[in-house]
Amino acid sequence: MRRILLQVAYDGTEYCGWQFQPGQPTIEGRLNESIEKLTGEKVAVIGASRTDAGVHALSNMAVFDTESPIPGDRFSFALNTKLPDDIRIVSSGEVEPDFHPRHVSCVKTYEYHIYNAAFMPPTMRNYRFHEARPLDTEAMNEAGRILVGTHDFKAFCSADTSALTTVRTITDLKVTKEKEELTISVSGTGFLYNMVRIIAGTLMWVGLGVRTPEDVRAALESLDRSQTGPTAPACGLILADFQFTS
Amino acid sequence: MRRILLQVAYDGTEYCGWQFQPGQPTIEGRLNESIEKLTGEKVAVIGASRTDAGVHALSNMAVFDTESPIPGDRFSFALNTKLPDDIRIVSSGEVEPDFHPRHVSCVKTYEYHIYNAAFMPPTMRNYRFHEARPLDTEAMNEAGRILVGTHDFKAFCSADTSALTTVRTITDLKVTKEKEELTISVSGTGFLYNMVRIIAGTLMWVGLGVRTPEDVRAALESLDRSQTGPTAPACGLILADFQFTS
Repeated sequence: MRRILLQVAYDGTEYCGWQFQPGQPTIEGRLNESIEKLTGEKVAVIGASRTDAGVHALSNMAVFDTESPIPGDRFSFALNTKLPDDIRIVSSGEVEPDFHPRHVSCVKTYEYHIYNAAFMPPTMRNYRFHEARPLDTEAMNEAGRILVGTHDFKAFCSADTSALTTVRTITDLKVTKEKEELTISVSGTGFLYNMVRIIAGTLMWVGLGVRTPEDVRAALESLDRSQTGPTAPACGLILADFQFTS
Repeated sequence: MRRILLQVAYDGTEYCGWQFQPGQPTIEGRLNESIEKLTGEKVAVIGASRTDAGVHALSNMAVFDTESPIPGDRFSFALNTKLPDDIRIVSSGEVEPDFHPRHVSCVKTYEYHIYNAAFMPPTMRNYRFHEARPLDTEAMNEAGRILVGTHDFKAFCSADTSALTTVRTITDLKVTKEKEELTISVSGTGFLYNMVRIIAGTLMWVGLGVRTPEDVRAALESLDRSQTGPTAPACGLILADFQFTS
């Protein structure tokens, strides 16, 4: 048995998220089907990030085991002929048989994309959150800097989490704006359920002047979900980068 | 009767083009349906540009006649509540009853979008043409400059045109590249069937070194469709701007 690591990009619009659900379109389900079509083997891929319905990825990671003789780096080409065109394997390679993508240190970068103009082109409707009111990028950055570091992010976590601890580390958080395109870029070693979307919703409050950066500090310290902003819609979120660090 | 002008943006992915076809999803059909839902009147909009299947628009134009008392500038808001979310009315207003969007001078700008990198994110698959081989932007610009002006563009027109003359005027043509995003921007007072997509296919030949800018001059002068490049796929094309000039 060999273990193959896949770097997976997808448009999440048409999927009920990463995680397999019987009878539902999921990224995990489509990957399992395409591998079976290619190798004839029934497999269950193990994903690194179980993204929600409508969330996109440029670089998620998954492994599976196979007895196929296909060279590790050729699986990307071979699987792309079996997958729908909204899922693409960026690269592939053989890893150690005990390599588990959720038990290895990593830095993930999520981007939350906001189209900040009166009118948003309909071609962007599945890939941007539309905010017509002007957002103060500098205030959002100031609030974002408060979140960098190791903190208990309980206030930035949906109530239905199964996490054992709500302490997480954000290594970088930047808000940039180029013309109408506002991007919240958050890097960290791990994230709680809906954490990036709640950060985005909270920073948008700050951008609109509904809350100050100091309010965000108080919200973080409160450990109270009712003190942070709404969970921003899934379509604006993309898992942009994923680096294993050990 | 009042005549209302609509500025229409759409994601053309799910449509068989602008022009009404019974039983098929078309932009024109959806506009007619949404106006009937709003006013109770059966109408047939007159469009300025009958874009092909899969082609997008930020700014196409259409008129229709109505006895509705809704103020001209309010139709945009009202119709957006009736339209699918891949068609949006950007603005609306009342015009003279004899205003015909195809009988008035205009300058249209089309953009052809190419993603020029080894890997294209699947979120872009409906909005970009993917070319993995490097394209020489400067050579493409040099060839593009040859096409600016008033010429017989017979070599850049699909055979099945019904146009009375194949003489057209291109007022501007620029090829720009920012990171992986290569854009061919073409402005003119009118275009032949598939003209921008054939220009894009021909300039890509030049960008790849398959043809020189001087070959493009010879192809233009030949008036022979077999001398120009392939019709580039619809998904890369967007009607980006539309200005009435009289």
